[in-house]
Amino acid sequence: MTSTAFTDLEIAHMLADAAGTAILPYFRRSDLCAENKLKEGFDPVTIADSAAELAMRAILADHRPQDGIWGEEFGQTLGSSGRSWVLDPIDGTRGFISGTPTWGVLIALSDDQGPFLGIVDQPYTGERFVGSSDGATMTGPLGPQALQTRATTTLDQAILFTTFPEVGTPAERAGFDSVSAQVKLTRYGMDCYAYALLAAGQVDLVIEAGLNAYDIQGPIAVIQAAGGIVTNWQGGPAHNGGRVLAAANPQIHAAALALLKKA
Amino acid sequence: MTSTAFTDLEIAHMLADAAGTAILPYFRRSDLCAENKLKEGFDPVTIADSAAELAMRAILADHRPQDGIWGEEFGQTLGSSGRSWVLDPIDGTRGFISGTPTWGVLIALSDDQGPFLGIVDQPYTGERFVGSSDGATMTGPLGPQALQTRATTTLDQAILFTTFPEVGTPAERAGFDSVSAQVKLTRYGMDCYAYALLAAGQVDLVIEAGLNAYDIQGPIAVIQAAGGIVTNWQGGPAHNGGRVLAAANPQIHAAALALLKKA
Repeated sequence: MTSTAFTDLEIAHMLADAAGTAILPYFRRSDLCAENKLKEGFDPVTIADSAAELAMRAILADHRPQDGIWGEEFGQTLGSSGRSWVLDPIDGTRGFISGTPTWGVLIALSDDQGPFLGIVDQPYTGERFVGSSDGATMTGPLGPQALQTRATTTLDQAILFTTFPEVGTPAERAGFDSVSAQVKLTRYGMDCYAYALLAAGQVDLVIEAGLNAYDIQGPIAVIQAAGGIVTNWQGGPAHNGGRVLAAANPQIHAAALALLKKA
Repeated sequence: MTSTAFTDLEIAHMLADAAGTAILPYFRRSDLCAENKLKEGFDPVTIADSAAELAMRAILADHRPQDGIWGEEFGQTLGSSGRSWVLDPIDGTRGFISGTPTWGVLIALSDDQGPFLGIVDQPYTGERFVGSSDGATMTGPLGPQALQTRATTTLDQAILFTTFPEVGTPAERAGFDSVSAQVKLTRYGMDCYAYALLAAGQVDLVIEAGLNAYDIQGPIAVIQAAGGIVTNWQGGPAHNGGRVLAAANPQIHAAALALLKKA
């Protein structure tokens, strides 16, 4: 039975705390053990990744046994409540093994309509970005702050982020480039931190491809609660991953979508 | 007369403290005032940039009046000591206006042989990377630590950083790509933070082009004190800027240099 001792939001914070505690001892360690998960690509799994997901699963087993779990490391566990916790213990493993503070712990709580509560947590910098029906907030070095996306409405004033210049397939790269050619500034390399910056009103667009559901559900909940919009490149739901367009507001979303639809 | 009340290293820390205090009120402010400095490119100057350099210059006027100053915002001030403080109050202004914690305050103390004391400071994350004749250290969220570059000797095991995929001219991009094609992982977008990660033993190579002296002198001092090596793409001194190759050790430096020399 679902425990009523803690709210869903409190549980989400407990998950983020536990993941950060599990991960930080392995961050920037010179003897970090990373292995290749995919033969073609570079997608290391770290001990930290597994330890963090197990720590989060233990909390959910105690407090939300009827909810499903979909974790990046240990797959899907069915529940009976119609709700699922979608977990990526270390999103941005390439950033993690390079020592950049751009990786994050991604947590979402979803039903069949998509995520309605989410956290993007960066335990090294101490930043936590939270979105729920209670609104969107962050904590970090500058203290607690409300999150609000920007009002930029034209591409020529927009700042765009993606993680790799390659983006994905050649067609996906061409789609990205068609937006990049119109914006004021394109930047790379931020992993999930780019979505947090969008929620925080620092950037206007994040465009990626080839995502998994657990890469994007936490960011979706945070961005939507902060006033932004996240869809796929056709304007449909993005919570199953794939090609993702995250935007600060409906106007800048429409401007980018018009270009991406042709990709 | 040069004050003996503080060592050069103490002065450098005072400069970094003052710069951070001047800059942080402007970081991630939605009403940030940025103007274009170059007609062709996007190189905003912020109020923070100017305020930080003025704060540093005031300290040097008090405590090191005989030293020269070379600052990114206010140019060169001649001294009579043969030494110069080389200052970039906000290196990575594009990162700064995007809210990423990858910009930094760069401080170097140099003579005609180049920089012999340096700081790379990230005031938002609270990280300070320091190199001098006393060695190389950092402070940050995980506490004080010694800095030591990595022992990676072959390109196929190396992690490479640069800030923009374009790197510089087409020839410079081709040079970068010739190294990028050989390494394990290439990442983008870190501004001066990439040099700090190299000093901290997290990455192996940073390759950039089109740098100014104040962009690289602070990083040179930190990296050299941590065991690394920084040259231009011909293997000569890099402290005047231009095309820069920073490497974790002489072996990986030689491997990258052999490719860059052809650019």
